[in-house]
Amino acid sequence: MRIGVFDSGVGGLTVVKSLLEHQLFEEIIYYGDTARVPYGIKDKNTIIRYSLEALEFFKNFDIDLLITACNTVSAYALDELKESAPFDVIGVVEPGILALENSVTDKSANILILGTNATINSRAYEKPLLSNQYCNITAKATGLFVPIVEEGLYTGEVLKSTMKYYFNNLDHPDAIILGCTHFPLISEAISGHFNGNCTLIHSGEAIVEYLEHHYNFNKKFKKTELKLFASENPEGLRKVAHQWLDL
Amino acid sequence: MRIGVFDSGVGGLTVVKSLLEHQLFEEIIYYGDTARVPYGIKDKNTIIRYSLEALEFFKNFDIDLLITACNTVSAYALDELKESAPFDVIGVVEPGILALENSVTDKSANILILGTNATINSRAYEKPLLSNQYCNITAKATGLFVPIVEEGLYTGEVLKSTMKYYFNNLDHPDAIILGCTHFPLISEAISGHFNGNCTLIHSGEAIVEYLEHHYNFNKKFKKTELKLFASENPEGLRKVAHQWLDL
Repeated sequence: MRIGVFDSGVGGLTVVKSLLEHQLFEEIIYYGDTARVPYGIKDKNTIIRYSLEALEFFKNFDIDLLITACNTVSAYALDELKESAPFDVIGVVEPGILALENSVTDKSANILILGTNATINSRAYEKPLLSNQYCNITAKATGLFVPIVEEGLYTGEVLKSTMKYYFNNLDHPDAIILGCTHFPLISEAISGHFNGNCTLIHSGEAIVEYLEHHYNFNKKFKKTELKLFASENPEGLRKVAHQWLDL
Repeated sequence: MRIGVFDSGVGGLTVVKSLLEHQLFEEIIYYGDTARVPYGIKDKNTIIRYSLEALEFFKNFDIDLLITACNTVSAYALDELKESAPFDVIGVVEPGILALENSVTDKSANILILGTNATINSRAYEKPLLSNQYCNITAKATGLFVPIVEEGLYTGEVLKSTMKYYFNNLDHPDAIILGCTHFPLISEAISGHFNGNCTLIHSGEAIVEYLEHHYNFNKKFKKTELKLFASENPEGLRKVAHQWLDL
């Protein structure tokens, strides 16, 4: 089975990491729109336009399924992609919500949603959780985490002071939705800031769970071929892939 | 006289601020490529392509001069813009270098160049200064300052820890080139980090000096009409303009 993974840049490789670990597919075509990254500071119409342009790229390949690894794309452009795509399209928001609901059954639990400005403004995670009776939700745009991760600062004072800036007045969360593909790279630091003891929802793990349970992807492939494409600087993407995926 | 000011996003408004203060023009057409910002993390070919596309926008107006306020554009795409434009094009790098040379005559002075990754990698400031016998130059990519300024964190712990991260092992500079239009907004903090006593080169002030001395722009206009355009979210650009320019 051949699938596509679309992301605004390199961040979606954290989702690819989970897909590779669980050996769900024979071939993964990854496309990062590195020439226009980041999407998380852009507006709805731009995000939809760029996503539909990326869809044209994937039409060059005979894929069975497209995963939009980017939370911002999943939040804003999923309906438009589904409408125009000749193959199935899955985002990361619904899997993230299901993963949370599976692991946090107490509806009064303190839930913290983190994401880019665009993702948080979309209320894509917040609205379904509120509809499902979760009553204690805080949504926080933490956009600076993206360039901090891109700079490789997974630990240290820059990250610490940024976490203090964002999290200072927040109560201890029972669960945190890492609503951006960059955030799993600093999940230990985020969890550490809150002295541990909170459930972290990671888009990559959530989508694997979703594919296994809702799409019955249970066949395991010995080897997955990963093909990497980018709208600019594909060498940069490959370099990050080697680093993050231990290729 | 009607001029165009091109920037990758909102940052070029710091250059507009200087132009307005010195009342050099009757009309300024500002265009920010907010749909594809930031340029400073992108590669040379992409920067040139986007700049030439922006040039097409300015061809809709009868302008006498185009200023590329963005340091990254000035560093990479100035020759291509000059070649294709039916009007004069001026970047901010050459004016910045001249401003430095006017205020720092000691060739052994300690000069610190700050900019985005792309600007620093281009060595656009470094090379002419070395050719002009300045022998004590440090060039430092400080890309995180861009989203920090966009977040409005002109003071505080996030900025302080980021300055420590970037500046920790540097000697005290005699002069600092603020080689990105976002950096004037944190110039006091940067100067403060080094306990003051350093000359700061600001693209906006440098270009005013350049226009007055090299282009003989000495006429003052009572009122400058500022027209703002953006490739997405023009309301966002107008909001920042009101804030930064005290409109």
